Amino acid sequence: MVSPLISGAGRGEGSNVTSSPKPQYSHIPIGMETPDSLEPPTLPERSLLSADELKAGWRLACQAKVISDATVVVPERAIKAAIVPLSEIQPRPFVNKIHLCMPMPSIDDAISDLSRLRRALVGVAPNIKIDLSVLQTVPSLLAAASYDVTATIAGDRLIGLEPGNTVGESYGIAVDLGTTSVVVALVDLATGRVLGIESRLNGQANFGADVVSRITYSMSRSDGLLTLQKAAVDTINSAVATLAGKFSVSPHQIYEAVIVGNSCMSHLLLGVSPQSLAQAPYQPAISEHFICWAKDIGLDIHPGGPVYTLPNIAGFVGSDTVAVILATSMHRSSEIRLAIDLGTNGEIVLGNKDRLIACSTAAGPAFEGARISHGMRATDGAIERVWIDGDEIKLQVIGNRPAIGLCGSGLLDAVAQMRHAGLLNETGRLASRETLRDTSKSNLLDRIVAMDGTYGFILAREGSRQITLTQRDVRELQLAKGAIRAGISILLKEFGIGENDIDEILLAGAFGSFINPASARSIGLVPPLPIQRITAVGNAAGQGAIMALLSTELRSEADEIARVVQYVELSAHPDFMEQFIDDLQLSEWCSNASI
Amino acid sequence: MVSPLISGAGRGEGSNVTSSPKPQYSHIPIGMETPDSLEPPTLPERSLLSADELKAGWRLACQAKVISDATVVVPERAIKAAIVPLSEIQPRPFVNKIHLCMPMPSIDDAISDLSRLRRALVGVAPNIKIDLSVLQTVPSLLAAASYDVTATIAGDRLIGLEPGNTVGESYGIAVDLGTTSVVVALVDLATGRVLGIESRLNGQANFGADVVSRITYSMSRSDGLLTLQKAAVDTINSAVATLAGKFSVSPHQIYEAVIVGNSCMSHLLLGVSPQSLAQAPYQPAISEHFICWAKDIGLDIHPGGPVYTLPNIAGFVGSDTVAVILATSMHRSSEIRLAIDLGTNGEIVLGNKDRLIACSTAAGPAFEGARISHGMRATDGAIERVWIDGDEIKLQVIGNRPAIGLCGSGLLDAVAQMRHAGLLNETGRLASRETLRDTSKSNLLDRIVAMDGTYGFILAREGSRQITLTQRDVRELQLAKGAIRAGISILLKEFGIGENDIDEILLAGAFGSFINPASARSIGLVPPLPIQRITAVGNAAGQGAIMALLSTELRSEADEIARVVQYVELSAHPDFMEQFIDDLQLSEWCSNASI
Repeated sequence: MVSPLISGAGRGEGSNVTSSPKPQYSHIPIGMETPDSLEPPTLPERSLLSADELKAGWRLACQAKVISDATVVVPERAIKAAIVPLSEIQPRPFVNKIHLCMPMPSIDDAISDLSRLRRALVGVAPNIKIDLSVLQTVPSLLAAASYDVTATIAGDRLIGLEPGNTVGESYGIAVDLGTTSVVVALVDLATGRVLGIESRLNGQANFGADVVSRITYSMSRSDGLLTLQKAAVDTINSAVATLAGKFSVSPHQIYEAVIVGNSCMSHLLLGVSPQSLAQAPYQPAISEHFICWAKDIGLDIHPGGPVYTLPNIAGFVGSDTVAVILATSMHRSSEIRLAIDLGTNGEIVLGNKDRLIACSTAAGPAFEGARISHGMRATDGAIERVWIDGDEIKLQVIGNRPAIGLCGSGLLDAVAQMRHAGLLNETGRLASRETLRDTSKSNLLDRIVAMDGTYGFILAREGSRQITLTQRDVRELQLAKGAIRAGISILLKEFGIGENDIDEILLAGAFGSFINPASARSIGLVPPLPIQRITAVGNAAGQGAIMALLSTELRSEADEIARVVQYVELSAHPDFMEQFIDDLQLSEWCSNASI
Repeated sequence: MVSPLISGAGRGEGSNVTSSPKPQYSHIPIGMETPDSLEPPTLPERSLLSADELKAGWRLACQAKVISDATVVVPERAIKAAIVPLSEIQPRPFVNKIHLCMPMPSIDDAISDLSRLRRALVGVAPNIKIDLSVLQTVPSLLAAASYDVTATIAGDRLIGLEPGNTVGESYGIAVDLGTTSVVVALVDLATGRVLGIESRLNGQANFGADVVSRITYSMSRSDGLLTLQKAAVDTINSAVATLAGKFSVSPHQIYEAVIVGNSCMSHLLLGVSPQSLAQAPYQPAISEHFICWAKDIGLDIHPGGPVYTLPNIAGFVGSDTVAVILATSMHRSSEIRLAIDLGTNGEIVLGNKDRLIACSTAAGPAFEGARISHGMRATDGAIERVWIDGDEIKLQVIGNRPAIGLCGSGLLDAVAQMRHAGLLNETGRLASRETLRDTSKSNLLDRIVAMDGTYGFILAREGSRQITLTQRDVRELQLAKGAIRAGISILLKEFGIGENDIDEILLAGAFGSFINPASARSIGLVPPLPIQRITAVGNAAGQGAIMALLSTELRSEADEIARVVQYVELSAHPDFMEQFIDDLQLSEWCSNASI
């Protein structure tokens, strides 16, 4: 019971996103059975929770301070429903290693080396196929190892031989290839354990910030497609090299990669032109799952290891969304859930085991800290939490270091808190010094500075360096938030239900930090459901990729998911534009906080 | 009835081995029902046929001259039993082309290009696999061709797409990769017709004349294996380029290669070390059939086209012997046949549908014209027939040109005729001028010249150039002949039958010219069976490769052949050495010719 509280409160520790797997739950609301054993709700709690919620004893794990023995209740939903725990997955990877102790050849038993291998494998992998490059290594390797070897098998294919028994050394990577962020998990295929996670800025960002500009680049020059493919692969390779070094794993013993991403990323990764995605009728070149081999795309794992890309749903709803559904079990649940995958494209899925519909919106990279003045990825030095308490600003910085910039979750908090503090009006305009002078918050006045003909707000001062949120930054977030909220509205209409029919909202994203559900609700990114029905699930797409890496059965489920999810094309929807303009406002949800 | 006679007699025409498919039958014996309509038997006929045979009306198609209306009988065996005619094979190649006229993508039907392809192929090739390199070409190709394309499918794999309907343009190559000679046939997979045949000296010959020296070379330096692989592939590529040019076929439309050869050649072609073939227990790295892709070995056909190597029987009985059995249908016949594949290694197979046994002997490249003073391959300018009539020497030269040298069949004829003319004694020693002065053949005396401390015999004078057969050349042939004949003896013993139990002897070889069966019998290369039971079948291994190229069913038969044939290791056989020494003699068969 206490662990979620600790994992929420302890977010500052071990929060280097480049090291170990993230805690599954964070910033979750907790119910207090003994309200008096806590200090009274803080201003952030008062600004983010409703009066009813506070009255019912809901507090925020990241805020509530214990002063005597306390009993807390963690909502069952937050534990059970959010994401399928990896510990529940029986590892049945596509790649398997088998130790073979074969009799040495003799005059009476002089069958070919390959026949000897097949004979030894007949019970486990009959009719095995072998690539020429592997065959070429067979005779010398068998001789040197005295026919005591470990065979690595991918499906019906022998991809490698190693001397001795190396069955325990079997690794894979699961990759969430985002337009802006790339997250790579190193997984032990023998135990099913995630050893570590590395994230990187997608090297393709140098050639365009979004999907459309990448497609344009790929078409603009003869080596454009190859350049973008290489940039993506190099990004993954960089993360793999770091992980391999950190966990003393030979890249040659990383035998498989499962990769998810939007359709454009899948095309670029495979070196397949995404041109058709940019023009009607927007058919992709490929939407089904695909297997190629690491050497085909230059991925620095075992060269003959399979690279498995999960299927896409439609032109702009990619395999990352399939992975989100897989990870959140939406396709098996009776409850109606709304999953939002926040990235450069925001993918939204609504439904349950009976029906799932999805759409994609161009949210821009604001949630990933990109195109924000002092934006950064959620690594050491990033402000990931912001509270404005009276005229004091409190920050939580990843790695407990001096702040360098602001990541997506910090941006969301900052805007939510500034709105509650009256620093932003409902259209998102920053207060001028004149406006603020009349309020009790006049001591925040010093932080307002004129910038670019309008204003900026100084969130932090580190020495001579200031971390400022500009009017333009707020606008970026508003555009992203508006697009996503409009997408949610269209999906609800298409599904034929209202906001209150949603049993749970899941906030996912590969940006490396957990969005505060209360802040998301506060700025109107999500519908105003009771707080215990809004859960931040972290990088669900990455989690789904890990699950598919671990289990071939789950891959079949992913194929089925891609087949059944119904795609809603927002740009073609008559209501979208009006909804979007409505949803740009920051007026949605007013808390009971006394501002 | 007359065609075999013509094809035999007309051997001089169209005999450029680098152009068109060989006539199937040549130099066959024919039975005369009207003896008086022919000129009397020539001396070659008298020297090569027995008295009984002549009395029964047997004549040689290459010798008998018609003087009035004649009725000839071609032995049924020569037509039916020798080699399976390609016209009897229903082409069912591994590679198939299918014309697809797909609807263009639209908003209502915007499935991926790959899904569209699969949908179009679902009836003919469900669950088709596709390589990344092909996938990468799909979108632009489909768009450019307005979705009217021809798919090329190898088994369950889409290997290429072409705009429009190109179903009729589908080619393959069948390769007999010999230690000395490489023969490549270009085959139209749509019609099953052989368009042309090219032969080349194996470029590996620069690195060693025989299998053992090639293995040594492959081990002697780090790039040895790669060098030999490249030499073999370059040799095939050279032949392919010539054939493609001559028959206006795009190398990209040559979709498959079926390759046969001895075990060492198979290993070297695939870049797999043949080292284990050279040391006990002599197990090969690979003996079963194998499929790789043209680009894997640098073969200049369609890069994604399969390269299929037929299975080997044992260490030194290769897939070329499997192909000989396939081509001659030994494995289906009730009659007991002895097939001899004359090459640098002589492979011998004995048996019928109930049992087949095989061995291999190191015959050396004499039958291919190599290591003979004036030896050459059977191309234009090669003496392919020799008759000594009285003191006159008659030659038949390929291409009806001035003679440049002597090919294998000419060498065999020359030795047989010289033996009958008393120019060689039974130990194979060339007559000295002194010996000959006493005989009626003293006018051949001018042709005997002293060479290297012994003698040589001038077969032809072309201007200032002399074509000489030396004592050493005779010894080379004796060694080859002795090895093969000893192998035959051991196989007969192992099988438990005598020479007369053989229903038919088949003489095969890739040397490009048809061995004269009567000469082969005369020098004791084969047991002295009645002449109508000895048939020269040409390049049966190459023919078997063509059959396997045309029919996947025959490939399964080839697998079964390789499985059932029993291998006899001659070097381990206690009787081999003694038999070999016996069989070196040229004393075996004495004809009725009056010399």
